[in-house]
Amino acid sequence: MQLDFTTFSLPLFATATETADSSLVLAAVLLSMVVIYLASKVGGELSNRFGLPPVLGELVAGVVVGISVLHLLVFPEGGADSSNSLIMTFLQTTGGLNPAAADAVFKTQSEVISVLSELGVIILLFEIGLESNIKDLVAVGVQASVVAVVGVVVPFTAGTVGLMAFFGIPAVPAIFAGAALTATSIGITSKVLSELGRLNSKEGQIILGAAVIDDVLGIIVLAVVASLAKEGSVDVGKVIYLIISASSFLVGAIVLGNVFSNTFVAIAKKLKTRGGLVIPALIFAFVMAYFAAAIQLEAILGSFAAGLVLDETDERVELQKQVLPIADILVPIFFVTVGAKTDLGVLNPAIPSNQEGLVMAVFLIIIAILGKVVTGFSVFGQPQINRLAIGVGMIPRGEVGLVFLGIGSSIGILSKPLEAAIIMMVILTTFIAPPLLRLVFPEPTTATAIQEMLLDNSSGKSLVIESPDSQDDK
Amino acid sequence: MQLDFTTFSLPLFATATETADSSLVLAAVLLSMVVIYLASKVGGELSNRFGLPPVLGELVAGVVVGISVLHLLVFPEGGADSSNSLIMTFLQTTGGLNPAAADAVFKTQSEVISVLSELGVIILLFEIGLESNIKDLVAVGVQASVVAVVGVVVPFTAGTVGLMAFFGIPAVPAIFAGAALTATSIGITSKVLSELGRLNSKEGQIILGAAVIDDVLGIIVLAVVASLAKEGSVDVGKVIYLIISASSFLVGAIVLGNVFSNTFVAIAKKLKTRGGLVIPALIFAFVMAYFAAAIQLEAILGSFAAGLVLDETDERVELQKQVLPIADILVPIFFVTVGAKTDLGVLNPAIPSNQEGLVMAVFLIIIAILGKVVTGFSVFGQPQINRLAIGVGMIPRGEVGLVFLGIGSSIGILSKPLEAAIIMMVILTTFIAPPLLRLVFPEPTTATAIQEMLLDNSSGKSLVIESPDSQDDK
Repeated sequence: MQLDFTTFSLPLFATATETADSSLVLAAVLLSMVVIYLASKVGGELSNRFGLPPVLGELVAGVVVGISVLHLLVFPEGGADSSNSLIMTFLQTTGGLNPAAADAVFKTQSEVISVLSELGVIILLFEIGLESNIKDLVAVGVQASVVAVVGVVVPFTAGTVGLMAFFGIPAVPAIFAGAALTATSIGITSKVLSELGRLNSKEGQIILGAAVIDDVLGIIVLAVVASLAKEGSVDVGKVIYLIISASSFLVGAIVLGNVFSNTFVAIAKKLKTRGGLVIPALIFAFVMAYFAAAIQLEAILGSFAAGLVLDETDERVELQKQVLPIADILVPIFFVTVGAKTDLGVLNPAIPSNQEGLVMAVFLIIIAILGKVVTGFSVFGQPQINRLAIGVGMIPRGEVGLVFLGIGSSIGILSKPLEAAIIMMVILTTFIAPPLLRLVFPEPTTATAIQEMLLDNSSGKSLVIESPDSQDDK
Repeated sequence: MQLDFTTFSLPLFATATETADSSLVLAAVLLSMVVIYLASKVGGELSNRFGLPPVLGELVAGVVVGISVLHLLVFPEGGADSSNSLIMTFLQTTGGLNPAAADAVFKTQSEVISVLSELGVIILLFEIGLESNIKDLVAVGVQASVVAVVGVVVPFTAGTVGLMAFFGIPAVPAIFAGAALTATSIGITSKVLSELGRLNSKEGQIILGAAVIDDVLGIIVLAVVASLAKEGSVDVGKVIYLIISASSFLVGAIVLGNVFSNTFVAIAKKLKTRGGLVIPALIFAFVMAYFAAAIQLEAILGSFAAGLVLDETDERVELQKQVLPIADILVPIFFVTVGAKTDLGVLNPAIPSNQEGLVMAVFLIIIAILGKVVTGFSVFGQPQINRLAIGVGMIPRGEVGLVFLGIGSSIGILSKPLEAAIIMMVILTTFIAPPLLRLVFPEPTTATAIQEMLLDNSSGKSLVIESPDSQDDK
């Protein structure tokens, strides 16, 4: 049956503009989700076949469907409009999307997918929090702090000084680029650790703790350099406020945890309708995420803290089980979107403005990798520890690096080549970390797994060994 | 520690408009979700304590937090702007939301929540499809068709003729109002049936089948009256197209089911990474939802068909288990949003324009209830069946009734009092159906439950008795 869609294109809604928009937005979102899910599964499975972490495949698949290659999933941030989006073109030819309305539908669809991807990383960090243990994190607190501080100071100093000395970059943009080198993407690192089954190893806990501290340090560094760039001076009051609020939030969350966890269990036990456990848990996670964002930290730190607190309750195991499929459908949206927003065009050496950037990029990438790898060797009192793994785990800049870049661009202090060099540094560190981590962190042997299981049971903690196959309980 | 949020309001993002927007949109969405989840749990639990279906409590709680009472969750469709939204006011005083940017953030936040609520009802119908059985539905196909046709013809005729005879309404708006009386909200009805543990009873299957057919009939009726209202004549070609496409879609989905279900299981078994079952299932559900929307049916019919097809596979039980928490977090967004968008202002008799509407509303409500209750008595060859329950199950107009209203308003053929009367009819039938259904459908006795279990097992179908407590496996 050959149907002519263009003639019959949604005639019912032709006059009802608002209804037409919302039904077309829904159609566009549904198609985007199908593209994201297909990309995440094809990428993740292929990556897994080659012995690489699935999340790397999801990122690469995101690049393939995104602005760099197929243009199926594009976002207005990069200057794209509806004519750049294949999904919008498809809707215009088959779904009766009016070209005049296309830009509005495109913008709304992009915003919905962006929010879904942000909810994805919030849920990811909530799940990572649920899988982590406050005591384990506190036990490695001093080592994690040293790793975090070294991982901020070394790349920042080397990057800033190098850019000024070798490339003649003025002080303020050089300081900004140096600051962008300090970030660590807790999302990418924790996901890879989880996929390798190493989240609860000593190395995993140090990396996770350092990444959390690094996120907080990064926000403070960003505040300092942003006010330096904008006003030429540093607002000391603001820096003190950020340090106090960040520390209070993290310590407060942990202290509050012991009080709140009992109340939470008592409430959840009283609820008799569907979602009686997972809805209160999400309310808590979203409130904490909101608070973290409100005091100028990142929302994901809030949901991570919420996960840590709820991990202390009796409902831990049941909650982990219920959050699993929710994370399964939301987290891939985040990784595919990060890939889709990555414009590999900056890597094209045929474009003259890229050439200067490429040279700076090589320098920044070397500093970015070495500056984090050395952090592993700053760990003391742990002779048996895999120092290389810790350093490698701190490499990916991911979405945090992109936030630095976004602020820098908006202030207008970065030259085009320097901006391109920072993007390349972010892309390369993000994509190289998962396979490198896989390399320095071989699959746990059966002996190690059993040892971990015994350790876990002896501490009264349920066994959660995360490996690509562990959820495969079909 | 007394913090002055206004002074320190997101200073980092002050110059980065795009970043500021997206972080404020996220904050607004997080707050809205917290409001929705709190409302759904408080409403659902209270309703359950009073022996009423939880979904009624979610709807009422939605009304309380929505445009009618608290103004926490408002939407631009009703003419509200950011100054009507308490969440926006809250963000302006605490989160550093710039009044100039408030309208944009409000609009985006509303669109995100609307899309999430539409995804919620898509997942709800997918879950209902997974809980239903094609064979059971086909077995009651003839009865369901009779119920659906009677439930369209009786209210339509009585409503149109009555409005013309008693109220002197011209033919075209009377026909439109009559058409609005034909809808049945499959979302509300199926959710209540599921909560009462009656989805798989014979009555439940007839109601579900009739509601599906009614949805299709309703779309055809809407096409007819809309073209009548706009052009003064009926586009016969369009009506024939709709009838053919709707029938082909539903029959095609069921036939395809037997072919596709094996392919699906084969693919899902090969996937080794996380979400290997639920992601392919959602891809299928979203593709079907998109196709249904593209051929001018409703997206929810597509996801229902996808659920029916996947219910035929071996992965049924595992898939139901994984979809459960996903539905738990998405479905309440739909019901609370429906409540929040309901403006009870039309019920205020102190406003003169409401008085004429109130009289018409009483008439429409009587027709709306009686016109559907009689459908139960059209069921033949089933002496033991609960005829009243079937009729009551068809009463709620819900979101489908609101679609009719939206189209009618946009064409501009409805007078203000008639429009108010239709809104009142939709509100009352939607809110009265859950408690009425509870009344005519007492809790299944243990004997019935055992009998159903034996029947279920003998047909090789796993036991799924849905009751408010059945998911409560903490």
